[in-house]
Order: sequence, then C-alpha cells, then structure tokens
Amino acid sequence: MTVKITIDCMGGDHGPAVTVPAAVSFVRSHPDAHLLLVGIEPAIRAQLKKCKAVDEARLTVVPATEVVAMDDPVEVALRKKKDSSMRVALNLVKEGEAQTCISAGNTGALMAVSRYVLKTLAGIERPAIAFAMPSQRGYTTVLDLGANVDCEPQHLLQFAEMGHALVSAIEGRDRPTIGLLNIGEEVIKGNETIKRAGELLRASTLNFYGNVEGNDIYKGTTDVVVCDGFVGNVALKTSEGLAKMLTDMIKEEFGRSLLTKLMALVAMPVLKRFKRRVDPAQYNGAALLGLRGLVIKSHGSAEAYGFEWAIKRGYDAVKNGVLERLVRAMEENAAPIQQAALDAGRANGATESNPANPAGPLPDGVAASRPNPPAPGEPGAALPSKA
Amino acid sequence: MTVKITIDCMGGDHGPAVTVPAAVSFVRSHPDAHLLLVGIEPAIRAQLKKCKAVDEARLTVVPATEVVAMDDPVEVALRKKKDSSMRVALNLVKEGEAQTCISAGNTGALMAVSRYVLKTLAGIERPAIAFAMPSQRGYTTVLDLGANVDCEPQHLLQFAEMGHALVSAIEGRDRPTIGLLNIGEEVIKGNETIKRAGELLRASTLNFYGNVEGNDIYKGTTDVVVCDGFVGNVALKTSEGLAKMLTDMIKEEFGRSLLTKLMALVAMPVLKRFKRRVDPAQYNGAALLGLRGLVIKSHGSAEAYGFEWAIKRGYDAVKNGVLERLVRAMEENAAPIQQAALDAGRANGATESNPANPAGPLPDGVAASRPNPPAPGEPGAALPSKA
Repeated sequence: MTVKITIDCMGGDHGPAVTVPAAVSFVRSHPDAHLLLVGIEPAIRAQLKKCKAVDEARLTVVPATEVVAMDDPVEVALRKKKDSSMRVALNLVKEGEAQTCISAGNTGALMAVSRYVLKTLAGIERPAIAFAMPSQRGYTTVLDLGANVDCEPQHLLQFAEMGHALVSAIEGRDRPTIGLLNIGEEVIKGNETIKRAGELLRASTLNFYGNVEGNDIYKGTTDVVVCDGFVGNVALKTSEGLAKMLTDMIKEEFGRSLLTKLMALVAMPVLKRFKRRVDPAQYNGAALLGLRGLVIKSHGSAEAYGFEWAIKRGYDAVKNGVLERLVRAMEENAAPIQQAALDAGRANGATESNPANPAGPLPDGVAASRPNPPAPGEPGAALPSKA
Repeated sequence: MTVKITIDCMGGDHGPAVTVPAAVSFVRSHPDAHLLLVGIEPAIRAQLKKCKAVDEARLTVVPATEVVAMDDPVEVALRKKKDSSMRVALNLVKEGEAQTCISAGNTGALMAVSRYVLKTLAGIERPAIAFAMPSQRGYTTVLDLGANVDCEPQHLLQFAEMGHALVSAIEGRDRPTIGLLNIGEEVIKGNETIKRAGELLRASTLNFYGNVEGNDIYKGTTDVVVCDGFVGNVALKTSEGLAKMLTDMIKEEFGRSLLTKLMALVAMPVLKRFKRRVDPAQYNGAALLGLRGLVIKSHGSAEAYGFEWAIKRGYDAVKNGVLERLVRAMEENAAPIQQAALDAGRANGATESNPANPAGPLPDGVAASRPNPPAPGEPGAALPSKA
C-alpha cells in the first residue's frame, strides 16, 4: 500500500529550505511513499528545482497561501490563518487524503490546530507529545514533552492512559509500568497537582509504579513517564544541551595534541559507533497523541537530515497501524481506568469545562481495526528506529 | 583562620556511614578546618573508630538525639524533632559556633528548618538552591534546583536577584546576564507564572536576557538561569541520568571485543581526563541561598567521596566570604531592583502574606563586610572547583 504523508513545508526555523530537500530524499529511498508538499507554491517549487526533483512522481505540491510563524499566538494560527500550510496539511489527513502529517511548526499552534481539525479521541481532553527516549533498558516513553503547560491532575491521568495504550499497542506489553515525574520518590513530594495526580493514578487500574525522578527516564525504571508539558520540554531540551556538551568535550579531549589525535585515530571505529548512537538528528520526530489522526512534530530547528527522520517516524507509524492500535487500546482501557478513578471518588479535581469529544468518525483513511496484532518488540511509530 | 563547619551526620540515604568517613578524610587534607559532627553519638563514634580517627583533634562530636528521616513531612522536621541533628547543626551556625552547615538530609525539611533557624535575607521570601552547572562557556548558575515547588512570579524575581548577587560577588562580574527558563524563546511562551515573571524581570534593573530553554544551561547562553524548584530539580536529575547513560555507553562500546578493549587501552589517558571532567561526585554540594547563614545541601544518595566535595564547597564558600559578599551585593541591588519592578506597577502578583524577614543580625561569626573585593574569576562557594 502507498503511504501518503502531508508535509507542512513552511513550518520550522528554516521552512522549505529544510522540509523540501528532506521530502525529496525520503521519497527517493521509500518507493511506497507519496508526499504532499503543502505551502507557498513558488517557494516549494524553487526548492524542488534546486533538488532536481521537479518531475518526481510521488511529490505533489498542494498550495497554501498563509504561514504560521514560530511566534504566532495560538489564536492567530487558529482563527486568522485559515489557509496556512499547517491547517491545509492537517485538513488533508482529516479528509483521508493522507495518513499522517509532519510539521516542524510552532508547537502551541500545531497542537491547537490539530485538535480543532482532527478532534481528540474519546476520553482525552488534551493531546500530548510523546517520545520514546533511549534508556539503559531500552526505551522510556515520555509524555507530555511540550504540548500542554499548566496541566490539571486528570490530564496527567489521561497522558498515562495514552502512554499505556501506545506502549501496549507498539511493544505488545500487557501492563506497561507508569511513573509520575516528581522531585522525589516519596508520596509527600511535589506540588499539589502532582500529589493529586498521584492519587488518581493509584486509584486507576493502570500499572502505576509511583513517583520517579529525572534520572529514571534514562535508567528505564518504568515503561512510561508522565509529566506536565513544561517540565517534559525542559527535561528534553536540557538533555539535548548536555548530550551536545559531552560529545563536544570528547572531541575536545581527543583534539588536544598530536598524541591524542593519534589515539582518536586508533579509537575511531568505537567513537563513530558512539556518535551514531547519540546523534540527536535521529531522535527527531515525536507523536502528537490523543488525536483522531496521526501528527508528527519535528524539532523547529531540525536540519534536512533530522526532518527526514521525523518523516520516517510518521511513515513507520502508518505502516505499523499505530493510530488504529491506539484507538483500540484506548477503547479497551480508558473507560475502566477512568471509572476506577471516579469510583475512588477522587476524580473531582476535574476542572475543564470542555469535555473531550466523545465520538465522531476516524479520518477516512483509517481502518477501524487491524486483523493481526503486532509482534512484541516490532518497531513502531513514536519509537526511535531500533536499527 | 580556622574554618568551622557543622556536619548533619544523620542526613542522607546512608547517614554516618558516609558523612563521618567524608569528614575524617576532609579534615586530614585541610589543616585549617575544624568539623563539628552532629548526630546520634554512638553511631558517630562507631564510625570514627572504624576510620581510626577517635583522637582526631579537629573533629568534635556534638550529640543530637533525633533524626529527620528522608520522608518526614516538613511539619514533623520543624515542630516535632527539635533535637534533630539537622536542627542542632543549623543552630551552631546561628550561634556563630560554625561558619557553615553541610547536610544531605531531606531537602524540604532542610529548607524549612534553615529558614526557621537562620531567617532569610532582607527582601527574600524563600531561599533557593543554587548550583553552578558546567557549560560550554564556563558555568551557568541555576536556581532554584528543588527547594521550592509552586513558585510565584515574585519568587522567580528574587531568585534572579540572588543569582545576580552571587555571580557578581564570586566572579566579579558587573552585570551578569539572567535567563528565565521556559519552553521557547518567544515572549508568548510558557504558563501564566512564567509570563508574569518575565514582565517583572523586564521591568527590573537586572540584566535580563529573556527566555532561555533547557539546552541554554549547557550552552552557557546566560550567566544565571532562574526557574521553579520543581522544574530545576527535574532538569538536574535528568542531566545526571543522561550523563550516566552516556558514560556507560562509552564503556560498553569500548568493552565490546578484544579489539575495542585494546583501543580503549591506547585512548586511556584521554578517556580518563574525560571521566574526571564528568564525574558526578565532584558536582555535589549546592548552596541554599537567601539565608542569613551558609548552608550546603548534598545529594541524599552521595557516597563519601561526593559528600567530601560538598564539605569542600562549604569550606571554599567560607574562605571566599561568599555570605558577606552576597549580603553586600543584595543590599546594593535588591532594593533598586524590586523598586523598579514595583514602579512599573507590575509587582502586584505578590500573594505571599508572609513577607521576608527585613532585618535581624547576621550570625556572630559573619563579618559585615570584607575589606578586599574578590579578583574576577576567583573560585568560590557555589561553584565547582575549576581545578
């Protein structure tokens, strides 16, 4: 089957100069992919020409006349720019013209427009950004990484449900463990929101491990770690900064003198392997979970190679039927999980007056279920490729 | 002059088994240090015997009959355990019997008891944990790293003032740059508290750079980064976890085969240098800033070598007159900074009904000022030793 992917070509710090070359390179290495390039037509065509891909059959330009700027407030993206590349790209998913949308645009805008266009899954008030971070025991799926600031306790419970559904769907695990990111393991730690979220999680039917700390993400203490988007984003960006500093330090140490440079030459195969493992570009592309459609958010500052990884993430997610599996897992689990929390009489922390969209059809391109359940460990959507 | 340091020997995950050997080792390598070992006497004496330090002249045991447990709520530490090792150790600083106190105890309790015993500096409502994290351009002083969850905007402004005072006092910089930790550089980013803190900072006379992201800590974009204690603690712990995973990965890559082990042997001098630079033990010991006394918080899980680094941090802080310099810098700057924010009519976000302690004497051991201003770049208190 052909995998149809829409690209918000205008998103990110670099726009078409990055998104178009990445799309061209991706389509050339994936014979079953068809990419819809959405944005200001002349800008996209100019880049296609530069890449000598004017006649590429599986690249279709879809014009959009507006661009959501990286500093546009959510309201502007949502209400004023109805013909933005972001909106048009998401509409194509909604209409079943594509199975996933990749954008490096403004996170707040992407989240709001996605939510408006695609709607959320039953039981979910707010979508969250999820990513499988590498750990000493494999991967830790962390959410939210920046879609929501100021989360209420019930949002953290919903993130846990989505994380549970994603990991059980993708990795075939029965009862993935859930950790609540906090500043200490003890129940008394944290702010009020965290303490109440801990109560909701303990009362739920989820496999709640308890509080975890920042280092547990990389230790791999739990399969899933849930947190407020502000905290998750800081953890992610801090990690990026530290990884860069440490790899630069290794380079610096080996570059100190002729002797150390000779040592580097000898150790080159090992250093290269290490560098490949920590290359941040390959950790680009996180899933916006909780929507009735598949959206992948790329780092705004990604270069073409990194953006291509984000496209690959969306492509893999489609191939692995992640959305259908997630929907099925949510249907099976969300109701009893939330009911258990309600039964415990502790879910009265809910304040959002705008409950999640309870129904509505899935986008046309999405089958209601998949006949064959995934093999455990099969690589999937929000997970970095394990190759 | 003799530097007198109190050690809360019962604090931390390991208690006297870690704190006493660290104290013994420290006193042996610092002939002008005198350590007061506070805690359950038999437990401390047993450890001293084990270290063959029973007759060490510059180690004095000060008995305390209670212990603040790592999971004791703040109220218990504050109201029920008035003869805890933590409280007695802090009292010795208050009474001028020692110039600094080192504790690996429960952060919340240490903060509350310190604040109660020592009181805060004029203009400061809440002490904050500050640490100079290594960056690609030297050091970035980050606060708060976990003393306060749920900060109000004016607390973040006060953290900025303290960071400003610390860096100008220690590094001799005139107008250190201040960054506000956020999830994007744009002014519109972040939650309401952050946005209001940004307004206060912009209206202040501080050298406010604007919003910074997690990676800027390690990039060294600003001299100081301020954040809520919850966020700061997650950033710190996440960094620890990632650093451990990356160094383990290097070990793993070099240990893969006989050939890679030979490569490691060749590259050993460089790898050792790198290991020394990233050794987490030497980054132990953060200053509790904003108090009328010098308190150093050690990691709860620190081993003896790491705890010794925390003692060293306190010792250096005393030698460098950090408290006096901080007090002077705060006196010179805090009033105009807060006034400017007030003048801008934006400081009405203040909600704390309990204003900072405006006056009160400094502990007896603390001189009001130091005759000689520090040379720029002179190593100091909250900074990791630059050797």
